[in-house]
Amino acid sequence: MAQKIILDCDPGHDDAVAILLAAGNPEIDLLGITTVGGNQTLDKVTYNARQVMTIAGVDCPIHAGATRPLVKDVETAGDIHGDTGMEIHGYELPTPTVEVADQHAVDFIIETVMANEPGTVTLVPTGPLTNIALAVRLEPRIVERVKEVVLMGGGYHTGNWSPVAEFNIKIDPEAAHIVFNEPWPLTMVGLDLTHQALTTAEVEAQIKAIGSDVADFTVGLFHAFRDNYKDAQGFDDPPVHDPCTIAYLIDPSIVSTQKVPLDVELQGALTTGMTVADFRAPAPPDCHTQVAVNLDHKRFWDLVTDAVRSVSSRSR
Amino acid sequence: MAQKIILDCDPGHDDAVAILLAAGNPEIDLLGITTVGGNQTLDKVTYNARQVMTIAGVDCPIHAGATRPLVKDVETAGDIHGDTGMEIHGYELPTPTVEVADQHAVDFIIETVMANEPGTVTLVPTGPLTNIALAVRLEPRIVERVKEVVLMGGGYHTGNWSPVAEFNIKIDPEAAHIVFNEPWPLTMVGLDLTHQALTTAEVEAQIKAIGSDVADFTVGLFHAFRDNYKDAQGFDDPPVHDPCTIAYLIDPSIVSTQKVPLDVELQGALTTGMTVADFRAPAPPDCHTQVAVNLDHKRFWDLVTDAVRSVSSRSR
Amino acid sequence: MAQKIILDCDPGHDDAVAILLAAGNPEIDLLGITTVGGNQTLDKVTYNARQVMTIAGVDCPIHAGATRPLVKDVETAGDIHGDTGMEIHGYELPTPTVEVADQHAVDFIIETVMANEPGTVTLVPTGPLTNIALAVRLEPRIVERVKEVVLMGGGYHTGNWSPVAEFNIKIDPEAAHIVFNEPWPLTMVGLDLTHQALTTAEVEAQIKAIGSDVADFTVGLFHAFRDNYKDAQGFDDPPVHDPCTIAYLIDPSIVSTQKVPLDVELQGALTTGMTVADFRAPAPPDCHTQVAVNLDHKRFWDLVTDAVRSVSSRSR
Amino acid sequence: MAQKIILDCDPGHDDAVAILLAAGNPEIDLLGITTVGGNQTLDKVTYNARQVMTIAGVDCPIHAGATRPLVKDVETAGDIHGDTGMEIHGYELPTPTVEVADQHAVDFIIETVMANEPGTVTLVPTGPLTNIALAVRLEPRIVERVKEVVLMGGGYHTGNWSPVAEFNIKIDPEAAHIVFNEPWPLTMVGLDLTHQALTTAEVEAQIKAIGSDVADFTVGLFHAFRDNYKDAQGFDDPPVHDPCTIAYLIDPSIVSTQKVPLDVELQGALTTGMTVADFRAPAPPDCHTQVAVNLDHKRFWDLVTDAVRSVSSRSR
Repeated sequence: MAQKIILDCDPGHDDAVAILLAAGNPEIDLLGITTVGGNQTLDKVTYNARQVMTIAGVDCPIHAGATRPLVKDVETAGDIHGDTGMEIHGYELPTPTVEVADQHAVDFIIETVMANEPGTVTLVPTGPLTNIALAVRLEPRIVERVKEVVLMGGGYHTGNWSPVAEFNIKIDPEAAHIVFNEPWPLTMVGLDLTHQALTTAEVEAQIKAIGSDVADFTVGLFHAFRDNYKDAQGFDDPPVHDPCTIAYLIDPSIVSTQKVPLDVELQGALTTGMTVADFRAPAPPDCHTQVAVNLDHKRFWDLVTDAVRSVSSRSR
Repeated sequence: MAQKIILDCDPGHDDAVAILLAAGNPEIDLLGITTVGGNQTLDKVTYNARQVMTIAGVDCPIHAGATRPLVKDVETAGDIHGDTGMEIHGYELPTPTVEVADQHAVDFIIETVMANEPGTVTLVPTGPLTNIALAVRLEPRIVERVKEVVLMGGGYHTGNWSPVAEFNIKIDPEAAHIVFNEPWPLTMVGLDLTHQALTTAEVEAQIKAIGSDVADFTVGLFHAFRDNYKDAQGFDDPPVHDPCTIAYLIDPSIVSTQKVPLDVELQGALTTGMTVADFRAPAPPDCHTQVAVNLDHKRFWDLVTDAVRSVSSRSR
Repeated sequence: MAQKIILDCDPGHDDAVAILLAAGNPEIDLLGITTVGGNQTLDKVTYNARQVMTIAGVDCPIHAGATRPLVKDVETAGDIHGDTGMEIHGYELPTPTVEVADQHAVDFIIETVMANEPGTVTLVPTGPLTNIALAVRLEPRIVERVKEVVLMGGGYHTGNWSPVAEFNIKIDPEAAHIVFNEPWPLTMVGLDLTHQALTTAEVEAQIKAIGSDVADFTVGLFHAFRDNYKDAQGFDDPPVHDPCTIAYLIDPSIVSTQKVPLDVELQGALTTGMTVADFRAPAPPDCHTQVAVNLDHKRFWDLVTDAVRSVSSRSR
Repeated sequence: MAQKIILDCDPGHDDAVAILLAAGNPEIDLLGITTVGGNQTLDKVTYNARQVMTIAGVDCPIHAGATRPLVKDVETAGDIHGDTGMEIHGYELPTPTVEVADQHAVDFIIETVMANEPGTVTLVPTGPLTNIALAVRLEPRIVERVKEVVLMGGGYHTGNWSPVAEFNIKIDPEAAHIVFNEPWPLTMVGLDLTHQALTTAEVEAQIKAIGSDVADFTVGLFHAFRDNYKDAQGFDDPPVHDPCTIAYLIDPSIVSTQKVPLDVELQGALTTGMTVADFRAPAPPDCHTQVAVNLDHKRFWDLVTDAVRSVSSRSR
């Protein structure tokens, strides 16, 4: 049976790939997309999500959420995702045809989790954790009701927004602290893993070969990432973070994991937003957190390729 | 015209007096009472609020809110308010006859503020600021819609839960940081002011003389506070914090104020939860925060006495 | 019998007045002057100290100490003390005729304290506490050997370098933390007290009437302070901080004090360098710290006037 | 020509091995041993150092230094090094025959560095960095005078005294912050490297085979480490940290290194004492810090074995 997920995202080029993978794989039942201010402002990322849904013919509901972090001032990632949050050269993005629902993303998350059978809904945040944190503080019962949280963010040995912190966690560390410290099963798909999800020339060729509008869009996303990551962080082949969460849910054998206690630093001068993993001893039996460690690069990109092909057949 | 307020509280003996003052003064239009985990757990303070409403015949809606602080672990004030949060010796508290509404306090706050004319609803938090912080993060438009925030909490030169921090702020400093940093007009009625609101023997006699059940209840609250504050903080006559907010709203001439920039410390080793006031220079013209400085003790207690008398005439 | 002191300073206009008061009052036996980078760089403040000694005919040894704070980056107070650290308009400062000793200030402090009878030497820091902190970490035995520490710095309710921190403590808070936490008797003469030591027109006239070179110098210091404090902090009559320590030693009845536990905040976002005083309860019997509370303005300035007169008779 | 070093240590079993390696290798000219409170109190580690010197016939001067960290309270590592700091079962430690010099370790360090040719003296701290920090604050000129600092401490991806901090750095992080931020060449031989320096059964046999008192002592050190590390941190073969610094100095090809900017976290809730390395981009050309990455296990232990053999020939 397909896994029910809510994808809470801030597209963002790699969020777009995550949407494509979720929409195009039969193992995933996408209950809804929720958006959160992150890579760009809420308005922009919500518009981008609608564009992706339009391109790919995704028909789940979309709800807009938090405009800003819980405590910290707003910070976006314009150097990586451009002024619109999903700038692409050489591909013309459509005017969205899907509408944003009236209900707030946080209320949608709560309502959906509470309305479904316990243990059936997985939350997949690929942006700052503001919506999830607000949801759990407004309705604490979702903690035991959710199946698991599989998030893109953090890193146990890797940072990108500071020497030891990743963007999603660093721009709203208090939200991350809330989410990491609730006792639900939580998988951190962090930079340690996603820096393995590189879009090589081979990957690009494989997707381009599909020969569809969605494939062109996907390759456009890669190109944008390639340029931005080259300039900002010195990558030759850029990492595509967010779809790794979906890939793990589709087939856990693609992403190896390790149980380890995790927490989030809130008050370091150098380390705020760091996801602190304690590898000093084997994780205790009741450890509810784990980290993604190794990615099967080929099978991951095959999954993405299959999804792009599948989505292509039903898109505009 | 009476001022519309939402009283967001955690009764708590002094919250109870605030409810009586709000319910018994014609200048206050009590739109609703919301509760928040603070002096005791949410369940207990909500039960206590219902008891006060029952005693005093208050018929506004009551909504329960956040069970715990945003980020910090739960901490209650059992040494001051006892195991129930409103322990009174020598007065038998009734079984509540008012019911808690289904809607979450945060949703009620948002809905009420958005449904009323802009600039007409005042928020009066007398507990931790968790509900208000959640409301403003879920619906940022309430900031410009609210008339003002008049809160009991903090202190510019006085602490009670640490050398420099007050209980309401210290147990949820992140929520306080959120509320203090939104640009709405905010009046901090802190310990500097409320430590002037002492229940002297004269005050007690004045209220006892009313000779009603509500008066007996009020005197019972004072006695409980007297014992607890004597033991815990060395006060001879105990302060009654929360009604000072309502008194200021009824008649600002009872509470003198000073404009001063305010912020909340989140990461001090000794100072977390301190409300930091900058008195080094005159407040800038656009300063949206002010602190309560001096209380007219006699007129304050006369207001409370009048309210107890007024409520007595309509109570059970 | 006169009190033996080591004056550890960073002249600085008000340090200069402290030197004059210490040199001109028979109750003070000035064992040595040590300097520390603070109001200006070590080179400048040491040069300034030598100038003051030259003007006033002070013949105790002078030793230069720490060039910078223990941990924090160097920060000076150019807006208050000017580029030289002791800029005066209308008074020509002399080329110093006294020489700096070879020995490091920290070694001099240790040697002097250990060479004198236990309980006879008082340390009087009027700059950052770097030298004293280094001394106590190099030779822990000075703690029980020193009579007391009487320092200018901090404030229990007043800040000048941040809303709640004073310059001397804020620029080297780690040093202050070390000094405040050693169990020697410590008197904090903070801004709460020194903001009472204002140089009114009357005070100025009183000193000017002495009619000596030292008096002209002193009035020049006041004028400089007047201009700088007016511009930087809005004072009409400027405070003269540092001599309050010496005045307290000469005659404790001029400065009222209160025992209170003190500590120094090291990691606040808003409060680093705050001297945190715990007034919540009476100080415990073994409390080794106290704060200066009230100044007898007239008697204080009479002491300074007498000292300027006394020094005038022996100066160049 | 042999490299002149000052070994600043807190023996400690692995410090003892570092002393043996330094004393027994012709490439090292041991100018002096200085001690610092760390693994155990200053008195105990100084006594232990004298015992090692006695066993091994080391005749350089020994100076005792700081009794405690700069700012933090004293914390020792009794669970690893036992009550004496160098407990060994089955080997009887001698009464030391070498005496501690009168001069403070910090003064010895300063004097030695300033007395030797610039760029000739290497500082090798294998305990908390308190002495080195005090030295550089007392005499800033040693920074440009020292050849380099090669220290055991920290870890770029590994902690032992917290999830992300190592003992030497964590118990005096302010000292480490001082030492890491001075612009001298600094090599951090951290846990990432030293956890490769495991005393396997083969290593033990190799040293035992020397058949001397010093070899018996060394094997005794290993046995003690084996028991303590098994219990405290779950190691099968225990790491021997401190001699890795000396091995790197003798033959840099045994320890590979990487240039990377380093700093020390002082105010994290979870991360205080973490040595934060920024691997996000290639180190800038003027980067003065590097980390040890890979150890040549065999050649390392051969060096130690040779040193034990060499020392054996001249010991008591």
